Amino acid sequence: MATLCRPAIAVPENIITREETLELARTLHADHPQLDLALRLIGNTGVQKRHLLQPIEDTLKHPGFTARNDMYESEAKRRVPDVVRRALAHAELTPREIDMIVYVSCTGFMMPSLTAWMINTMGFRSETRQLPIAQLGCAAGGAAINRAHDFCSAYPEANVLIVACEFCSLLYQPTDLGVGNLLSNGLFGDALASAVVRGRGGSGVRLERNGSHLVPDTEAWISYGVRDTGFHFILDKRVPGTMAMLAPAMREMAEPHDWDVSGLDFYIVHAGGPRILDDLCHYLDLEEETFRYSRATLTERGNIASAVIFDALERLWQDGGAGHAARGVIAGFGPGITAEIALGTWVDQGQVNGSGRARGRAGDKAGSKARDKAGRNGGEKRTAAV
Amino acid sequence: MATLCRPAIAVPENIITREETLELARTLHADHPQLDLALRLIGNTGVQKRHLLQPIEDTLKHPGFTARNDMYESEAKRRVPDVVRRALAHAELTPREIDMIVYVSCTGFMMPSLTAWMINTMGFRSETRQLPIAQLGCAAGGAAINRAHDFCSAYPEANVLIVACEFCSLLYQPTDLGVGNLLSNGLFGDALASAVVRGRGGSGVRLERNGSHLVPDTEAWISYGVRDTGFHFILDKRVPGTMAMLAPAMREMAEPHDWDVSGLDFYIVHAGGPRILDDLCHYLDLEEETFRYSRATLTERGNIASAVIFDALERLWQDGGAGHAARGVIAGFGPGITAEIALGTWVDQGQVNGSGRARGRAGDKAGSKARDKAGRNGGEKRTAAV
Repeated sequence: MATLCRPAIAVPENIITREETLELARTLHADHPQLDLALRLIGNTGVQKRHLLQPIEDTLKHPGFTARNDMYESEAKRRVPDVVRRALAHAELTPREIDMIVYVSCTGFMMPSLTAWMINTMGFRSETRQLPIAQLGCAAGGAAINRAHDFCSAYPEANVLIVACEFCSLLYQPTDLGVGNLLSNGLFGDALASAVVRGRGGSGVRLERNGSHLVPDTEAWISYGVRDTGFHFILDKRVPGTMAMLAPAMREMAEPHDWDVSGLDFYIVHAGGPRILDDLCHYLDLEEETFRYSRATLTERGNIASAVIFDALERLWQDGGAGHAARGVIAGFGPGITAEIALGTWVDQGQVNGSGRARGRAGDKAGSKARDKAGRNGGEKRTAAV
Repeated sequence: MATLCRPAIAVPENIITREETLELARTLHADHPQLDLALRLIGNTGVQKRHLLQPIEDTLKHPGFTARNDMYESEAKRRVPDVVRRALAHAELTPREIDMIVYVSCTGFMMPSLTAWMINTMGFRSETRQLPIAQLGCAAGGAAINRAHDFCSAYPEANVLIVACEFCSLLYQPTDLGVGNLLSNGLFGDALASAVVRGRGGSGVRLERNGSHLVPDTEAWISYGVRDTGFHFILDKRVPGTMAMLAPAMREMAEPHDWDVSGLDFYIVHAGGPRILDDLCHYLDLEEETFRYSRATLTERGNIASAVIFDALERLWQDGGAGHAARGVIAGFGPGITAEIALGTWVDQGQVNGSGRARGRAGDKAGSKARDKAGRNGGEKRTAAV
């Protein structure tokens, strides 16, 4: 069974705080008729700071798509190897033991993708499958986990390396002045993440089922304008409301697995913005605390696109893990509007091999209400499922 | 077992002949110091005609990346549904029976990818997995088949729809004047292809094994410059020689399957240019006739990127198919430099259910020499493999 191992995360050195973001918006858009609304929306994101590739004065310059994409490539080559090595170390694997690399990134474009450079420079085998995905945006982290899971289902001995490289600041478009653009200028951050899905062994989230869901007729709600000036992010004001459609999709996906999606032990979801998390609490009847890892990612790093779910997952690890046999869901949300959802059970090889089934701290904290529900709703199936 | 069903192909209405291409090169580049070399290279491609989205006078204009990508999107939406419906009909499936759409295209960029639009407008289920691949170039057709195969290995009841949409003429860059650019201006054509991989049932190529191979340190040989003016195709003069490395990779991939890659019944490979086919004949010790479907695609349509292998495969079908139990290889080659290789056996449900094992005409013609070799090299294993 495929196991998603502990991720590695990296963020660039330059930091912009919430206060600096708001001050910048006031300065740059002093005459904007909807400045107050934009400031309120940025304030409501809850983002306290974000990490950026460049100092803010350089971030605000648009040197042209050519120069930006060159920077994407050079920075990716500079920063990807370190997170990859750390993710491999977490999974106790070497590059030669990797069978597929899934590289997800929507903030720059290369052909060949960075996978070719990685194989040439980092010791992966020539036979490593390359799966670069550029067009699933913030949902691509979930898609990467799910396609890695599928690959390990097809080849049970295989190991898949996932890399999410998102330099959202390279999409800053100074001429885009809609409220949605002003908001996104204050929301997105830069980050890299990597994680391994092991076909055999490993501690982490044993992947059991995955699914995708497209919310009908919402193609235009999150999209790119592809222009001479590069990728222009287009965000519809209806996006924050999509959990009304995606929460039921998550529930329906869990049902054939005999899981109640409101009764799980851990929840790692895309923190696109605060309303997503608030609405998921509401529609799935969960406490705010349930999404604390996703919220911490949003607060400390902003929306880091496909890297969010890995960053949130790493926070769960830092918090002691979910505890052996804890059940959880991982969900990425992005353009389409698409959700990529995974259900899995926490496996701790140390506890498997050790003396007992003591839950990690995170599982204890996360699941009090959730486990009560699990007890009502098919919790007895857990033993069979484990 | 996953079966690749008969593809559907479409080409745009506008045609440019070899003579027109050469005349155009003479007119546009009269003062080019290497014009004679470029003309010779274009002449050597063997391309007799190509299909283009627009009349040649419009193809030669560069209206900017914004307008080009807009045209990519509108033309994809106009032309994809027809090939998809025909591919579904070949596979005797409806949109609701499709579990994943693999959309490959390197000549335009959309986010969300066209998969979202297809699900919204063509009757696919909201749960359909979306796998858009933009960064594998001409190898993406092979990658699509291989990832579809893997998906059906993970979910044996699943069906995967593949779409390859390549409008290479939208990458014409009038300011790129290297000999490699002049050659590619005379080599690439526009086309769309679609095919279904069925997890159960269906006639076509039963997919048995797949593999990928990256030729070390050739990342820069086929690549895109991503610029304000869009994607710039960069082709190194060493590319045509890569079969010296890829032919052995094909052989090595077939060995653990107990197949001799020089002894198969049909060969469907990417026709990037004539030398690829000539060299494969040489390195795999095959007759020129072996690659007649790939060569016909090149001659009649030019290099149509990820769609080549589907167009060549469709020609095999038109020719009567390979005959039940015939063994073959499908290989896409593209940036990386990457080969995506599939091994499979022709399955004809009519012959399975019917009276005998009469080979199709194509199998009879293709395999005379190849089958002699198969007899020497593990041909006796065929029965066990079927």
